[in-house]
Amino acid sequence: MSTGKDFTASCPIPIAEYPEVTMAHGGGGTLMHDLINRMMLSVFTAPGLLTRHDGAVLDPPEGRLAFTTDSHVITPIFFPGGDIGALSVYGTINDLAMCGAKPLWLSAGFILEEGFPMEDLWRVVSSMADAASIASVSIVTGDTKVVDRGKGDGIYINTAGIGAVPDGVDIGPHRILPGDVVIISGDIGRHGISIMAVREGMDLHIPVESDLAPLHHLSAALLDEGLDVHCMRDLTRGGLASGLNEMAAASDSTICIVEDLIPIREEVLGACEILGFDPLYVANEGRFALVLPEDQVERALAILREQGSAQACRIGSVRPLNSAPVIMRSAIGSERIVDMLSGEQLPRIC
Amino acid sequence: MSTGKDFTASCPIPIAEYPEVTMAHGGGGTLMHDLINRMMLSVFTAPGLLTRHDGAVLDPPEGRLAFTTDSHVITPIFFPGGDIGALSVYGTINDLAMCGAKPLWLSAGFILEEGFPMEDLWRVVSSMADAASIASVSIVTGDTKVVDRGKGDGIYINTAGIGAVPDGVDIGPHRILPGDVVIISGDIGRHGISIMAVREGMDLHIPVESDLAPLHHLSAALLDEGLDVHCMRDLTRGGLASGLNEMAAASDSTICIVEDLIPIREEVLGACEILGFDPLYVANEGRFALVLPEDQVERALAILREQGSAQACRIGSVRPLNSAPVIMRSAIGSERIVDMLSGEQLPRIC
Repeated sequence: MSTGKDFTASCPIPIAEYPEVTMAHGGGGTLMHDLINRMMLSVFTAPGLLTRHDGAVLDPPEGRLAFTTDSHVITPIFFPGGDIGALSVYGTINDLAMCGAKPLWLSAGFILEEGFPMEDLWRVVSSMADAASIASVSIVTGDTKVVDRGKGDGIYINTAGIGAVPDGVDIGPHRILPGDVVIISGDIGRHGISIMAVREGMDLHIPVESDLAPLHHLSAALLDEGLDVHCMRDLTRGGLASGLNEMAAASDSTICIVEDLIPIREEVLGACEILGFDPLYVANEGRFALVLPEDQVERALAILREQGSAQACRIGSVRPLNSAPVIMRSAIGSERIVDMLSGEQLPRIC
Repeated sequence: MSTGKDFTASCPIPIAEYPEVTMAHGGGGTLMHDLINRMMLSVFTAPGLLTRHDGAVLDPPEGRLAFTTDSHVITPIFFPGGDIGALSVYGTINDLAMCGAKPLWLSAGFILEEGFPMEDLWRVVSSMADAASIASVSIVTGDTKVVDRGKGDGIYINTAGIGAVPDGVDIGPHRILPGDVVIISGDIGRHGISIMAVREGMDLHIPVESDLAPLHHLSAALLDEGLDVHCMRDLTRGGLASGLNEMAAASDSTICIVEDLIPIREEVLGACEILGFDPLYVANEGRFALVLPEDQVERALAILREQGSAQACRIGSVRPLNSAPVIMRSAIGSERIVDMLSGEQLPRIC
């Protein structure tokens, strides 16, 4: 979203008159209604929104409902491979997809800081609309608040999402069994490294772009083909290590992974070395781990690759709980515990 | 929530060890999981949450779905008559109620500032749990982010909500007709004045408490009795004037109200005079306007009063669109236009 389009010229709020968000844009008066009616409703065009009521009223989908929320506080808000707008849409879509749901509807809650450039808001909102369109979801309800200068950081976006879980689909850590196999959908660490490279002003020899992407088509393809998916987890904050630890802890089992099988790009490994990061803990925004029975592995990998996840591969398996929730075997055969991170490695990565 | 209970002693996170929220509490590691598992899940006990998955999976209710969201950035976070926790629950419940929905499930997204007192977080979270319990809704999914010191303001809370709209219920500005009557559920202006009194350090002769309250039992009682409610609107940011203007604009009609009929407490009027506020624009958090046919008015008022809204009364009626969306007739018979506020009167009131 950061290139090619002139966001000053196309902004529905005249930037010459309102170059920045003011407190009044969140005050409930005409300026707030202008912002909502002229900017938000110019790109978020779901029928529910257009009634300008307190909420959207929607026909229920078939199946059960999945419901999830995420606030997005990433800095910088524009980064290689994405921006906070696309992130806020795909982040919530991916959480729904991990429940086995088809994402349907999103809410959008903006917390803007007084002084935030109007053009940047338009870029972000346009990017949200594009992402929603790509993922075939509708942003059906929203809210805008403005906080005083110095009490925010430009823009925070909360999205909540509703999806439909088809009958018969039951996905969660409670279904993980010893003997199950763990698959990863692609190479890890690019989102976190792309953000840190910008923040640290690193001049990477090979630039790293975020892996930000929607995952719902991958999960849908697996489920549509009738695969008996036991659990899925997107590997966001805390990275692969945290995702695996969460699944292992919630299923009272041990997940054993093989170091050499985990796909990581050379340039990501290089940047991790410079920054002192362990790539297992670096955040991703378009990668997930998948747990399913051994006899479904080849079909799952074929489906993921067919859907464009060329690097999808098996990285380990589930054992009965022993010494630790997650264990990694190295190339020379030694095993080490992969702990949950105790503090935080990368603040404000999503 | 602000008195009576020792929140230091009861806090599930040891305050001696973690007196303040740290960046690591949002980092995806063990501290974040501790905060979620020990504090959040100790009071938010819906089955969906306990699976510790990316989202909640829920059996669909009967009827259509209502979906709404609100971010809460109020300052101060503790105020006479409430706090940001109860506000974040009732605010979203009320938006659902205004759609004619029975509120069912909420999400909770916290944006915490590094350094926010752990005890205050526990007070707020406890208050949310109490409010959810009072209103018979479940907080089923959540998210916690931490931003660096100086990039937030203690705590912001987004809640999104899902409710069920019974078959046959159709509420919205599209149903407003000339001849309809406008009812208000109680006296106006107390929420805004209670907040401003704290902020300005005003020593009010008669203290003003926020009117913060859930409204779903009132809307449910009206609908359960089969009243043909055309539209409802809670009178939050921008107050009565903005709520009426929104309804009038969205229905292409004029709403005419009578000044003397609008219930306002003496102490609120007095504080408004001192602060230079027009009470019509002051925010409420437990009041709504109701539009319905003339022949239903007496029954509606009887139901509202039976439910405890003693001051519910008729304040005006709907006419075909003429000179302005909202007109107010004074005691001496003169009429004036009640405009939408152009800027903002009370920043960060919700």
